[in-house]
Amino acid sequence: MTIVEPLNPRERLLMGPGPSTVPQRILRAMGASTLGHLDPQYIGYMDETCQMLRDVFQTDNALTFPVSGTGMAGMETIIVNLVEPGDEVIVCINGVFGGRMKDNMERAGATVHTLEVPWGETFSQQAIADVIARHPAAKLLGIVHAETSTGALQDLSGIGAMVHEAGMLLAVDTVTSLGGHEVKVDDWGIDAIYSGTQKCLSCPPGLSPVSFSARAIEKMEARQTKVQSWYLDVSMLKNYYTGGGGRAYHHTAPINMVYALREALAIVLEEGLEARFARHREMHLLLREGLENLGLKYIPTESLCTLNCVSVPEGIDEAAIRSRLLDEYDIEIGGGLGVFAGKAWRIGLMGHNANRRSVGTLLAALKDCLG
Amino acid sequence: MTIVEPLNPRERLLMGPGPSTVPQRILRAMGASTLGHLDPQYIGYMDETCQMLRDVFQTDNALTFPVSGTGMAGMETIIVNLVEPGDEVIVCINGVFGGRMKDNMERAGATVHTLEVPWGETFSQQAIADVIARHPAAKLLGIVHAETSTGALQDLSGIGAMVHEAGMLLAVDTVTSLGGHEVKVDDWGIDAIYSGTQKCLSCPPGLSPVSFSARAIEKMEARQTKVQSWYLDVSMLKNYYTGGGGRAYHHTAPINMVYALREALAIVLEEGLEARFARHREMHLLLREGLENLGLKYIPTESLCTLNCVSVPEGIDEAAIRSRLLDEYDIEIGGGLGVFAGKAWRIGLMGHNANRRSVGTLLAALKDCLG
Repeated sequence: MTIVEPLNPRERLLMGPGPSTVPQRILRAMGASTLGHLDPQYIGYMDETCQMLRDVFQTDNALTFPVSGTGMAGMETIIVNLVEPGDEVIVCINGVFGGRMKDNMERAGATVHTLEVPWGETFSQQAIADVIARHPAAKLLGIVHAETSTGALQDLSGIGAMVHEAGMLLAVDTVTSLGGHEVKVDDWGIDAIYSGTQKCLSCPPGLSPVSFSARAIEKMEARQTKVQSWYLDVSMLKNYYTGGGGRAYHHTAPINMVYALREALAIVLEEGLEARFARHREMHLLLREGLENLGLKYIPTESLCTLNCVSVPEGIDEAAIRSRLLDEYDIEIGGGLGVFAGKAWRIGLMGHNANRRSVGTLLAALKDCLG
Repeated sequence: MTIVEPLNPRERLLMGPGPSTVPQRILRAMGASTLGHLDPQYIGYMDETCQMLRDVFQTDNALTFPVSGTGMAGMETIIVNLVEPGDEVIVCINGVFGGRMKDNMERAGATVHTLEVPWGETFSQQAIADVIARHPAAKLLGIVHAETSTGALQDLSGIGAMVHEAGMLLAVDTVTSLGGHEVKVDDWGIDAIYSGTQKCLSCPPGLSPVSFSARAIEKMEARQTKVQSWYLDVSMLKNYYTGGGGRAYHHTAPINMVYALREALAIVLEEGLEARFARHREMHLLLREGLENLGLKYIPTESLCTLNCVSVPEGIDEAAIRSRLLDEYDIEIGGGLGVFAGKAWRIGLMGHNANRRSVGTLLAALKDCLG
């Protein structure tokens, strides 16, 4: 039989692309006594969690809830419920996560048209208008708000109107922006959105908040085929999360993860969305100044505040620097993904960690390691 | 903005069909500092967790890991990876979860042949031999070891040999048995198995342990089509969990849930499997005697030790009794599911809760409520 040592994880400063450092208040909430998934007290906590998610997504969408899986389960939930075999869709790709959207949509049976720009760049309104015009039969356009692989922030204003004008739905990935950047689901005309808990909400990984517009629900209700995933089938999940059908049991929700998310959302709303976004911006500018003073260059044309993706200088062994930061300073930053593997560092300033102490600590350690 | 009260869940005695009461030791482990999913320390914890899962599953299967979702995600993982569109399969149905297997397999494109017996009954070796003989082209047989909806325990001995003789794979649901009843993956010839954390492992819900045999891996590697789920695609997950391909990032694992599962498995192995199964059996007999003294009758022909499903006596409002147990005694038991809705109670004796104090507490409270 396997014998293990007592669990004793190091208290890392998590400044990579996620998970980000989780405050004690959230860890304590997660460790509260487990309730049953049909217990009225738990249903109350879950309803509050969904309501706070609406606040953070800036939406009135009734169908807003945390999927019982990590961010990629949220992506898959959106796709398998909104796409039917044979549907044409458009996916905008400027990094790893747009590529994953495409892969997911193809697995759901879609014919995928892509709009691609080099990694690190974003999409102009004109380019999106053009791709919509080229594929009038498409039923959905998928785009990433915050590309975790490149640190690029996509301006979403105006896209919803164009997409709807063409009779399509707009699906958006906000895994690395929700809670750190403005995300206005209703104002921006987003029909389906997903995020993760372990980034700017400063909660452990394990849930994926999603929200669906009335238009999206209409598309789901008109489906001719069953959703290919039983676990992620919104037609059944909605009975549990929104009260239709008497809170019918579907699967056992991850109770303690929902406690953690509820606490994380309460912290976000106590701070206030505007103040939180301003803090992320301010800390990003502070970090940016410091990184540029160290001679590091930002890769994306329009950088996220929450994730700072910089080129590794010539001649530097990037993995060795990351190992040293981890081993000697207990600081985690991320390496590059995909075409940026070995060539980039990704430094997160997410949620709880977007503060002067973290910025100063990271800059000092990085200076040591580079010097 | 939504303002919520501090989280303060009641300390329920969870004696329903799961989740079961989680010991403080596991809750504390879950609340330890979050590490990154690629942190060498975390990879070590994950490897230990997978090794302890092998011990509990009684298998040497390399491909043994916790799926990042609750038990139903485990069921879906097995099915979407092992079934290809057009495959014939056999599913044995004697309750809700066999029915869900069928639904899941159909969503994966299988042609499903069923073997059905009334709810509460189990399958004889002869009946299984017959159904295999009737469908020689079937590629997989799915069966539930512990039917959570009826409390029936299926004897699995001999089934693996018959299934393999016919060139098929054996897939088994052990959500309500793993950690409370013997589950011998290798000896019983099980090719694919899934469970949940929130039952006899006494861990919060959120993960689904799975294991695949070499035969199952062979079938997966011979697939002609992509797995329909990106999130649950074992061909990618195995690189993260078993070290092939350099621990490639697939999705962000639910770190703190893995801490909890690691602690839960350590507790199981410290007690020892044989001692643990004997304890579940002893407590079941004690509870059974008490319930029968109260005039309650067991529904299944072969009852699980971990879940006790009894008929509600004529004239009793079963939901009112459950509400009273919850409101006045802070004890949760389960109602009936499916054809037993309104007609049965399901009383769990799972993991930590399979002890004299819980049995006595429940019997005393139930006697009060019935008297």
